Amino acid sequence: MSLVITGTVAFDAIETPFGKTDKIVGGAATYAGLAASYFYEKVKIVGVVGDDFQEKDINVLRSHGIDVEGLQVKEGEKSFFWAGKYHIDMNSRDTLVTELNVLADFDPLIPESYQDCEYLLLGNLTPQIQQTTIQRIKEKPKLIVLDTMNFWMDVALSDLLDTLKMVDVLTINDAEARQLSGEYSLVNAARKILTMGPKYLIIKKGEHGALLFGDDQIFSAPALPLADVFDPTGAGDTFAGGFIGYLARVGTINFNNMKNAIIYGSALASFCVEKFGTEGLKDLSEEKIAARVREFIKLSSFVIE
Amino acid sequence: MSLVITGTVAFDAIETPFGKTDKIVGGAATYAGLAASYFYEKVKIVGVVGDDFQEKDINVLRSHGIDVEGLQVKEGEKSFFWAGKYHIDMNSRDTLVTELNVLADFDPLIPESYQDCEYLLLGNLTPQIQQTTIQRIKEKPKLIVLDTMNFWMDVALSDLLDTLKMVDVLTINDAEARQLSGEYSLVNAARKILTMGPKYLIIKKGEHGALLFGDDQIFSAPALPLADVFDPTGAGDTFAGGFIGYLARVGTINFNNMKNAIIYGSALASFCVEKFGTEGLKDLSEEKIAARVREFIKLSSFVIE
Repeated sequence: MSLVITGTVAFDAIETPFGKTDKIVGGAATYAGLAASYFYEKVKIVGVVGDDFQEKDINVLRSHGIDVEGLQVKEGEKSFFWAGKYHIDMNSRDTLVTELNVLADFDPLIPESYQDCEYLLLGNLTPQIQQTTIQRIKEKPKLIVLDTMNFWMDVALSDLLDTLKMVDVLTINDAEARQLSGEYSLVNAARKILTMGPKYLIIKKGEHGALLFGDDQIFSAPALPLADVFDPTGAGDTFAGGFIGYLARVGTINFNNMKNAIIYGSALASFCVEKFGTEGLKDLSEEKIAARVREFIKLSSFVIE
Repeated sequence: MSLVITGTVAFDAIETPFGKTDKIVGGAATYAGLAASYFYEKVKIVGVVGDDFQEKDINVLRSHGIDVEGLQVKEGEKSFFWAGKYHIDMNSRDTLVTELNVLADFDPLIPESYQDCEYLLLGNLTPQIQQTTIQRIKEKPKLIVLDTMNFWMDVALSDLLDTLKMVDVLTINDAEARQLSGEYSLVNAARKILTMGPKYLIIKKGEHGALLFGDDQIFSAPALPLADVFDPTGAGDTFAGGFIGYLARVGTINFNNMKNAIIYGSALASFCVEKFGTEGLKDLSEEKIAARVREFIKLSSFVIE
């Protein structure tokens, strides 16, 4: 059995108040895959890159035991490239460059060896590609998690609504939950969205943590207050990867395990933002992750008899 | 021994997307006093009103056992009046009218019977009035909590900094913590603010909960996600009143009790915003509050072995 992640594998150039990078390996599937690899052995990527993506770049994934058979390499074409600059508050950014390149006509081919997919994470891509990915996996996975963004609500809402009917968990931010539902209260927004298909909704609130809705329950997860956030790029993808990776490890889908999965996803995201690009996800260990999770426990626990 | 609360006692006229009120009884000391009265018997108010403030208005406080000997009534003058209109998101509002009236030359007189003050809450007022209140209480209280806002950072920073040296706990919101410290990261902001006098800092984040810093620890408290917020007026004052009222009841100041005090303060604030004005604080009970606190526990608890 395996955990399949569809998403971008790309080059990013990032500028923050603390420094800037040249083109470095990024993309939703990269961040999510690295995060998931700390929890589950059989992580498999579906994506596309150009021939500018070198062996050393692909090895960022391979070195974490990630299967890249489903990563198509298009000869004579270039990889998806994004350049962005973060403002001082790190919560807003300007996109300087978006070159779709190979992503423009990406067809998510699923290798035969991926048909054992038990957990499926659909990283932020067009709803159409997300839907095609689901349709090409012959046996319905045990859990499908979909990440999306406001852009697709603006330009492909009908496709998105169709795709939502096919998934178990949706992850979006608070502004997107409000946009998708037309409700300002997040409680009312969640109620509406949970009638659109997903059984669970995760609302990501960045430095304010995350909310999980489902099974007529709500869970509020804290974010770890950090002294220094160097680079928020990939935090949401890392969260999603850690979340589904943890669930794949425990193997049972219920609200309590989802709560813990959110804590583990948040812990991985907190490592991610402490360094540039994927740097913070490279050398983690069970021990480091467990210590970080203990910080979340300490941060949010209280005892009232 | 007693809990003394200095702050505005006023008339408000409130308009939200859900309705509007005529002049109703409001003010920081009113909200804080009502909240504190559910935890502690000897709550005493220092404030000032005009002769437009009728017996029935004062009875809003008296009916909760609140001592109003320190509430000055100025004959021939009018009470402080604020009118505001909330936007659809309930997080922003326009002030339509601010009439200082009796507040313009408010001198916080402390009745002799208030000199048993053990807990002191300085609601949002000029730092000068807050300081005078502290100085007029002969024996230093066991705990002084100060609430303030960005306005005083803009126009009376030097006074505010002097006053901060005299208090134990400061409550402000996240934007104010950033303004006061000049630090964007709330961790760094807290580090700086805790060198300015207070031993504890509470950062109020509205619908995102609150953070407590002190004793080299951090606590992140959730906010209860509510389907319907009718009127946020007084939520911060209610929080502060519940917070100090709970601490007065338990009688021991330490980080763990502060954490619980934040949960109780947040629970009271959640009742406050569900109705207009002080309506939501009028008919609470131990049972209702305990049930609401259980919702906070359920909302934020998770078990990772």
